[in-house]
Amino acid sequence: MIILRSIAETRKALDEWRRQGRSIALVPTMGYLHEGHLSLVDEAKKHADRVVVSIYVNPTQFGPNEDLDKYPRDFAHDEACCQARGVDAVFYPDNAVMYCPDHSCWVTEESLSQTMCGAARPGHFRGVTTVVLKLFNITQCNVAVFGRKDAQQALIIQRMVRDLNVPVSIIVAPLVRAPDGLAMSSRNKYLSSDERQRALSISAGLKQAAALFAGGERQAAALCELVSAGITKAGGNIDYVVVMDRDTLRPLTTIDRPAVLAVAAFFGKPRLIDNVFLD
Amino acid sequence: MIILRSIAETRKALDEWRRQGRSIALVPTMGYLHEGHLSLVDEAKKHADRVVVSIYVNPTQFGPNEDLDKYPRDFAHDEACCQARGVDAVFYPDNAVMYCPDHSCWVTEESLSQTMCGAARPGHFRGVTTVVLKLFNITQCNVAVFGRKDAQQALIIQRMVRDLNVPVSIIVAPLVRAPDGLAMSSRNKYLSSDERQRALSISAGLKQAAALFAGGERQAAALCELVSAGITKAGGNIDYVVVMDRDTLRPLTTIDRPAVLAVAAFFGKPRLIDNVFLD
Repeated sequence: MIILRSIAETRKALDEWRRQGRSIALVPTMGYLHEGHLSLVDEAKKHADRVVVSIYVNPTQFGPNEDLDKYPRDFAHDEACCQARGVDAVFYPDNAVMYCPDHSCWVTEESLSQTMCGAARPGHFRGVTTVVLKLFNITQCNVAVFGRKDAQQALIIQRMVRDLNVPVSIIVAPLVRAPDGLAMSSRNKYLSSDERQRALSISAGLKQAAALFAGGERQAAALCELVSAGITKAGGNIDYVVVMDRDTLRPLTTIDRPAVLAVAAFFGKPRLIDNVFLD
Repeated sequence: MIILRSIAETRKALDEWRRQGRSIALVPTMGYLHEGHLSLVDEAKKHADRVVVSIYVNPTQFGPNEDLDKYPRDFAHDEACCQARGVDAVFYPDNAVMYCPDHSCWVTEESLSQTMCGAARPGHFRGVTTVVLKLFNITQCNVAVFGRKDAQQALIIQRMVRDLNVPVSIIVAPLVRAPDGLAMSSRNKYLSSDERQRALSISAGLKQAAALFAGGERQAAALCELVSAGITKAGGNIDYVVVMDRDTLRPLTTIDRPAVLAVAAFFGKPRLIDNVFLD
């Protein structure tokens, strides 16, 4: 496994693979890897000959009052995880490699990004789409794999690829949960054991709501109220609990098309997100 | 020479060239080709094995009160010009190919685009950077050639390529003038012969200013006043006459670094632009 720090060495190494006729899959991450990320590596391997994991805590997707400085980092751990999982290369740039001091170009998505995490975190998705396009261009990957936990992010990336004709196939891999049901996230590290116990109300509520839906419930409000009540009872601070059209991310009253029931809530400092698809 | 109307057939044809090891240069145009465009084709041939000209009047770079509907179009003429000049393929999409009805992703440049044509034409450069990135992604060209008449546009494209790590080399080719000195432009078609005669005040003023600069004049105001006076005397309606730092497009008072003296002015309806470099 090779560690790539600069754009020039990354292009050189990946050009060599391309010359050998190898296809390349990228798994973009912010590091502090867990089983959710590593499941994306497994998925990537199914779609390409070589797997590159990028590890970069992208400052432009954090708001001024967010947890950029406190975002967990552990490169030695990440490197060992990638090595063990059979990753071919890790792209691990620093900020000077990724952004010029007079950086002035951005990729924006102006529809899907207006709601949910986009409403709560202004500028977040502009940072995400910009850095992801940069990573695509640096690696010129054939395929890129994203996790479904960030359902809105995955939809926005798919929209970007469509609208800007980016020659990369996007794979969205299933959400991975810890044995207790909590959606895997690097931010879970910051939950106290009490907070973690109470945060299980998110996944438990989503599971109950999905069962109600499977039983025939089609009113979005009924599902949202069920989930919200559980989180509030557990002492969580809700950012949003919504049922959205899965193509447009517009809110649904009656669930008459593919939908996503999505949650963002704080337990202590960490802001957690989770979702279930309703089909 | 092949004519490509869809993205799928364009990718197929160009992938085949790539498989054969051919490099590809793109010359993005809005058609109604003149000798300025065709000089870009000549330049493109020096840098790649195959030359693709795109012909697309991009609606998203026109403001609501601009000349989108009246922008001159003549595909038969353009096709003949490309054929005669040895172009290998023309990419000639329609709006439905280029933009989905729910298109929502944009590329923005937020520094260089704030002045000059960007100040006069809000949203213009957002349309330009978005469509150019789309064309780069559709063709996956190695090289792209732009004309120096649109000096600000060329700088913004170079900035976009740098900031988003776009794997395309940008060539900026010299401005081409008609024998009378007028910078070549598709919009010149709409000048009456009287307007055209009077519009020569632009290039004449720039030439005089460049001579003054060569003679030692370093005060931007002196050069701007000279050019402005000539255009005003000829009955032109000035949008801007400016001297800018050529890296940052910030206005210069004293010309102590590479600079551009740039003009935009109306003679009748057509808005004409022109510039000289001051080194």
